[in-house]
Amino acid sequence: MAQTVTPPRGMRDFLPAEKARREHALSVIRGVYAAHGFDEIETPVMEDSSRLHAGLGGDNEKLAFAVMKRGITPDDLAAAAESGDALSLADLGLRYDLTVPLARFYSTHRAALPPVFRAIQIAPVWRAERPQKGRYRQFVQCDIDIIGEAGPLAELELLTATVDALEALGLDGCRIRLNDRRILAGILGSWGVPDDLRERALITIDKLDKIGPDGVAAELATLGVDRPGVADELRELAAADWSIAADEAAAPGWLDRDAFRDLVALRDAVPGAAVDFDPTLVRGMGYYTGTIFEIAHPDFGYSLGGGGRYDHMVGRFLGQEVPACGFSIGFERIVDLLAVRDEGRPRSVVLVHDRDVAPAELLALKHELVASGVRVRFEKRSKNLRGLLERVTADGFDAWAPVTAETTDAASLEFRDLAA
Amino acid sequence: MAQTVTPPRGMRDFLPAEKARREHALSVIRGVYAAHGFDEIETPVMEDSSRLHAGLGGDNEKLAFAVMKRGITPDDLAAAAESGDALSLADLGLRYDLTVPLARFYSTHRAALPPVFRAIQIAPVWRAERPQKGRYRQFVQCDIDIIGEAGPLAELELLTATVDALEALGLDGCRIRLNDRRILAGILGSWGVPDDLRERALITIDKLDKIGPDGVAAELATLGVDRPGVADELRELAAADWSIAADEAAAPGWLDRDAFRDLVALRDAVPGAAVDFDPTLVRGMGYYTGTIFEIAHPDFGYSLGGGGRYDHMVGRFLGQEVPACGFSIGFERIVDLLAVRDEGRPRSVVLVHDRDVAPAELLALKHELVASGVRVRFEKRSKNLRGLLERVTADGFDAWAPVTAETTDAASLEFRDLAA
Repeated sequence: MAQTVTPPRGMRDFLPAEKARREHALSVIRGVYAAHGFDEIETPVMEDSSRLHAGLGGDNEKLAFAVMKRGITPDDLAAAAESGDALSLADLGLRYDLTVPLARFYSTHRAALPPVFRAIQIAPVWRAERPQKGRYRQFVQCDIDIIGEAGPLAELELLTATVDALEALGLDGCRIRLNDRRILAGILGSWGVPDDLRERALITIDKLDKIGPDGVAAELATLGVDRPGVADELRELAAADWSIAADEAAAPGWLDRDAFRDLVALRDAVPGAAVDFDPTLVRGMGYYTGTIFEIAHPDFGYSLGGGGRYDHMVGRFLGQEVPACGFSIGFERIVDLLAVRDEGRPRSVVLVHDRDVAPAELLALKHELVASGVRVRFEKRSKNLRGLLERVTADGFDAWAPVTAETTDAASLEFRDLAA
Repeated sequence: MAQTVTPPRGMRDFLPAEKARREHALSVIRGVYAAHGFDEIETPVMEDSSRLHAGLGGDNEKLAFAVMKRGITPDDLAAAAESGDALSLADLGLRYDLTVPLARFYSTHRAALPPVFRAIQIAPVWRAERPQKGRYRQFVQCDIDIIGEAGPLAELELLTATVDALEALGLDGCRIRLNDRRILAGILGSWGVPDDLRERALITIDKLDKIGPDGVAAELATLGVDRPGVADELRELAAADWSIAADEAAAPGWLDRDAFRDLVALRDAVPGAAVDFDPTLVRGMGYYTGTIFEIAHPDFGYSLGGGGRYDHMVGRFLGQEVPACGFSIGFERIVDLLAVRDEGRPRSVVLVHDRDVAPAELLALKHELVASGVRVRFEKRSKNLRGLLERVTADGFDAWAPVTAETTDAASLEFRDLAA
């Protein structure tokens, strides 16, 4: 019974070299975040359906994989057929992000957590995306969040930890884009966008990079925002920089002064990173309430991660408002950019043994070498020794030694370097 | 909108201390397995439903969580109601073990893997178990498998790597129980159990620890195996040891000589561990074809892991037989046994700051300390300083320093040790 043997559509296997590369990058990120005072936690991959579909996940809610109830009865099926509601058969779902589970976790365990809780979450999430290049249905997110801190110290800690993590990965020279939902609210207000259209207008502005100012203006018009000159205003907004309020009297009317002052203070306090003001930066999620930010690298045409303040989400679970702010590194986007590093890897050797060497002898050799801190792999001697050595060299081994029935102990092994 | 805020039934959150403990144990296991020449891989958490329900997972198949198809139509629901087949609405499922996905992975990527492939998989699996103490619906398995090695070197490498890993975790003095499916076949043959009842008879014998020889004999009788004296024979079998074949002429007729000779050779080659022969050891899974083994610790009344040879499974996917053998550590059973270890942890300090210290000043202090290799957490000064210090001591911090508006740089901080 030979079957098709691919992983499920949009999901990936990781072979040893790629798995090692990913784990190395994750351990660098973990280490930096821990040094910055964050603590790693873990939640189950599933949450109750009602929680995932509580309106906190924005468009991602629609992409949640639903897990079927256990023990579905014929009556359940008949009821679902009657109502047309397939989701009535699901009681769990796979998380589509790490923020909704974190808010739930915080609400569950608040009494056991410090008043200001700094969380690391490094874990997979699942979205039923349409298959396309670079979009996966299972992918890893690296999130840090600070819950319980209303002031800008939270934003500062998140941004500096993230810049440090990216630098530790070899991604120097990142640029931070900063904005604040209050500034966006000012812009929409100046255009006369009614409250009930603001969320949809923001989703449209969020497409500025993709469809350009004219595209955004056209889409806004279909929403009923048909103010003339919007495309030109968008061009001006996209070109705005910190000098926009250099002359307070000349600053545009839409600029929320308080929010802008906070952003300037943030900019001045982030050590060692270029910080741009971008009043058109939206970030997709509807739950943001204040600062929003993205990090990009000049070599790449996309953001490496982003985040913002979401002060009302925890309250949805806890019934009591708790301020919160988070940052998520787009791990799948950065892992391919990283140079492979060998630091800290133990010496790795291959024992190429004749077929008549007793297994117990081989094991004794391995035992001795492993105990001395060496990584050991056996390979059976084959006619194509050169091919074998090329393969293990590609696998990252440093040296090899032949083992014959006469090899008595590890000291008698003659190691030869593998040219990497 | 306050909601119930527990994780889904049978699944767990891990708070920082527990998460750190788990990650530490996993990294010890990973390190030992890598030193023994195994390579870590990763597969998606989901596999296609047809693959999970191909009859390879034994009873665990019934416990698989099913993931609903996307875009289920009213017609799909009507058809499911008609047929009563809820699973027709699912196209994916969460893996219930790591062995079926590994066989699929190997079949997908065989051309890119070495002829003898030694795999590490450390990852969660999901089973819809009925909730009970110590049984979780999401739990981590640590598996090593060797694919492509038909000889006893595979068993030897698996057993020595596992014993090393458990010792590295502080679990010295483990005992290995060994058996072989061929020996079990000999016992069933001596009882005249017909072929079509053997799998069910093995499942019954597997309950020996729980229901005792009389219970097993009674259950075998209901299967039609009502040979008198079975309970006594089971008692003798359970007491059997390596001396059973000391006198070849007196060895019992059911003892498969080839299999027993292989087990003796295995015993003699495993360095540094006690190895018991147990002809009643079954291991639940139907896919085992040869050697089976379990590891137990004298302090605990349950096995810490087990495995065996499953030479036909890869063929089910690949359409070509490839020998395979694996071992799985029951991670959830051992993680609670481990002493917490602090080795290699960086120095951790808490900066207790007045509320009037500027965020930028705090960040500059943190930046300097982190750059010097120290883990740093901020805490706002509160009236109950003693309570605060007790809490951060419990969180594993080593020292604290007050920060006031007059603290100018990291060198001016006065650190005080926290008594652990």
